[in-house]
Amino acid sequence: MRFQCPRGTRDFYPAAMATRNWIFDLWRRVSIRNGFEEYDGPIFESLDLYRVKSGDEIVSELFSFSDRGDREFAIRPEMTPTIARMVAARANGLSKPIKWFSLPRLCRAERPQRGRLREFFQWNIDILGDASALADAECIFVAADFFLATGLTQEQFVIKINSRGLLAAILEHGDVDPSQFRAVYAVLDKRDKVDAAAFGKMVDELGLTASQRDTLISLGEAKGAEGLETVAGLVAGHAEGEGRLADLRDLFALLDTMGVADCCRFDMGVVRGLAYYTGVVFEAFGTGGLQRAICGGGRYDNLLKEVGGPPMSGVGFATSDVVIEDVLDELNALPEHTSGIEVFIIDGDAESFDTVLSLAADLRRRDVAASFSYKRQAVGKQFKQASQKNARRVVIVDEKTRTEKTVSVKDMAAGVQQDVTIASLLADPFQPLAQ
Amino acid sequence: MRFQCPRGTRDFYPAAMATRNWIFDLWRRVSIRNGFEEYDGPIFESLDLYRVKSGDEIVSELFSFSDRGDREFAIRPEMTPTIARMVAARANGLSKPIKWFSLPRLCRAERPQRGRLREFFQWNIDILGDASALADAECIFVAADFFLATGLTQEQFVIKINSRGLLAAILEHGDVDPSQFRAVYAVLDKRDKVDAAAFGKMVDELGLTASQRDTLISLGEAKGAEGLETVAGLVAGHAEGEGRLADLRDLFALLDTMGVADCCRFDMGVVRGLAYYTGVVFEAFGTGGLQRAICGGGRYDNLLKEVGGPPMSGVGFATSDVVIEDVLDELNALPEHTSGIEVFIIDGDAESFDTVLSLAADLRRRDVAASFSYKRQAVGKQFKQASQKNARRVVIVDEKTRTEKTVSVKDMAAGVQQDVTIASLLADPFQPLAQ
Repeated sequence: MRFQCPRGTRDFYPAAMATRNWIFDLWRRVSIRNGFEEYDGPIFESLDLYRVKSGDEIVSELFSFSDRGDREFAIRPEMTPTIARMVAARANGLSKPIKWFSLPRLCRAERPQRGRLREFFQWNIDILGDASALADAECIFVAADFFLATGLTQEQFVIKINSRGLLAAILEHGDVDPSQFRAVYAVLDKRDKVDAAAFGKMVDELGLTASQRDTLISLGEAKGAEGLETVAGLVAGHAEGEGRLADLRDLFALLDTMGVADCCRFDMGVVRGLAYYTGVVFEAFGTGGLQRAICGGGRYDNLLKEVGGPPMSGVGFATSDVVIEDVLDELNALPEHTSGIEVFIIDGDAESFDTVLSLAADLRRRDVAASFSYKRQAVGKQFKQASQKNARRVVIVDEKTRTEKTVSVKDMAAGVQQDVTIASLLADPFQPLAQ
Repeated sequence: MRFQCPRGTRDFYPAAMATRNWIFDLWRRVSIRNGFEEYDGPIFESLDLYRVKSGDEIVSELFSFSDRGDREFAIRPEMTPTIARMVAARANGLSKPIKWFSLPRLCRAERPQRGRLREFFQWNIDILGDASALADAECIFVAADFFLATGLTQEQFVIKINSRGLLAAILEHGDVDPSQFRAVYAVLDKRDKVDAAAFGKMVDELGLTASQRDTLISLGEAKGAEGLETVAGLVAGHAEGEGRLADLRDLFALLDTMGVADCCRFDMGVVRGLAYYTGVVFEAFGTGGLQRAICGGGRYDNLLKEVGGPPMSGVGFATSDVVIEDVLDELNALPEHTSGIEVFIIDGDAESFDTVLSLAADLRRRDVAASFSYKRQAVGKQFKQASQKNARRVVIVDEKTRTEKTVSVKDMAAGVQQDVTIASLLADPFQPLAQ
């Protein structure tokens, strides 16, 4: 019987695993240097936890199962319910702001297709217990810090920022009925995916008044500093709208202070489908061919209460390994895979293999990645193996090792080779070599 | 509605997560320096993959589910079927020996109890495509290298080693019927858990001849160098037995060459329950109070063929985060958790916060973990926050920063404080400070 991995999942052979680890390491490093602490929950949760947040319709999108006690569980499809549950359970004991990150493995019962897998990994960044623009700014800075750390330039990505609160205030000010907000959000969210005519047609189908229609058309064009001016005109004299606009301007001022304003842009067309966002929302895009958002997030106010916790505002974002790999691959920004071997040890004659083995053990105990050929074979063939493994240095053990306690060390990049005592090699495995 | 994590699973709040990451980092480092490359598979596999290896009875021990196409899957309970499947699929393209490691998350539908969780992590080490004692020795060396790297001394753990092939040869030589081998293995495996009388009683119940009974009793006592001599007597003149004993002696000689013989010991009482082992088997134990094995493994010959691959011998071991945490905790060898913050930046007056923010951003972009207080408050209170986060250094921004472009830097451990220009701080954030 022959087996494959289930459709929509991936096998990570060493080269693919190295890419995944490279992305994970960068996610972790950027999180930690921005003052976030890592957390994790179980791979499966009570099915009810997802029902509470997303309703019964979510169940068909999950891999769910029961245990022998007929308790219903599901493999986690996202991390937000888990962090809400964990913070709710210790809300009073945790000092605020709570700055946490996570690198969860997630599964969704999707029909597999390009870019939509049944299993993937996410990077989640969240700040809870602080409702200020400072927390919004820190989250957006972290996203920018990551993209710049991958090697992308600030011309190669953009973070589009909006405020759902501001948008709602404008709609209220224009007497749009709150029952229509979701439909209006959905149309605005499509603005960047269609041309002006198609957008106008979608707006027409909403059945708004002429002035509401004009407002929505101008919101669809509201981008960048100029877009903020358009919005300023729309909210003039409306206290709630002016307040929300002032908050958004504060956010942009903070991003400017933090040095990432050039990668950020106001865009009324970013609304985000998820119903639970209540304030600032944002999405990042590569400026290459990839059309999908490469990260997305925003502020949520009601999540903790829903899972039984106290009211607590939060802001966060997520991105996935799949989309990050796609955007970096498109821009040739992924690193090459190497074996990780630093020193390859060769036996120059039959009696030297014991020393090869003890030397490998001694180097490894000193945290040097050391390897050797399992087969006893000619020195030339062993050198070939060392090259295949991209070893930095080759150490040759032979008769001189027995008589003079020296080995011959070769730096593979520089091509330099020198005799060194075993004691000296162990004391400083990557010592400079003379010609 | 209030939620908890499912019974038998764990929430990893930051302190617990830091411990998990510390163990994972060490597993990874030890694997890489021993020349192993990381791989991973999906969290769920075809249910049939587990049926093929372990029979239908395994199904009740798994969390299994179906997708909308009625395909049956199970969350992986172990990694061995996955590595066998992955290697089988590319058997010819992979250069031998295949030295791979993995850090899988695994789930089992157990009744939760102390030390037996429904979700846990493993470290898996495997060498495939090489049947020599050298591969056995490398695997056992890796286990020893890890335990020594945790800070345990060679007196605090022991790796007990046996050969199932040797044991089988002795039983065959003693005319024990092969149909009885499994029952004999099960009794021998209990030797260390009971006293001599109880062991004798279990042996009696096997219904062996008097001479077979005597052999089994002496096998139960066969440990260490002396035990090898007992075994030598039992196999004298029996070619298969002598060959297997010679292989085992080769293994001990290799472990001696690699410098870990002192943590290793022959022990006929180690058999390992899993049916698929065919050669060398081993288990490590802490020498403290913990009675469970802290890692276990051995050589398997038939696994790849079972999942549709070519015949290929392998040797490997696994250990879990739960047992490693238990043994290190017992010996006080787990590190303390810190926030990871390196520099905490304080504003000395109201106008300084913008500089705090831009300095934090600049330090983070230079890979320094920088933090600050979200609340504008007295310098003393901000210092307290810095101490709580175990910051290495505190940087104070105040009027002098505006007039002279300097900040005051304090090393928290040394208690030394000095004015430094911003440019100098950014160029060398942890520069030596004068009194």
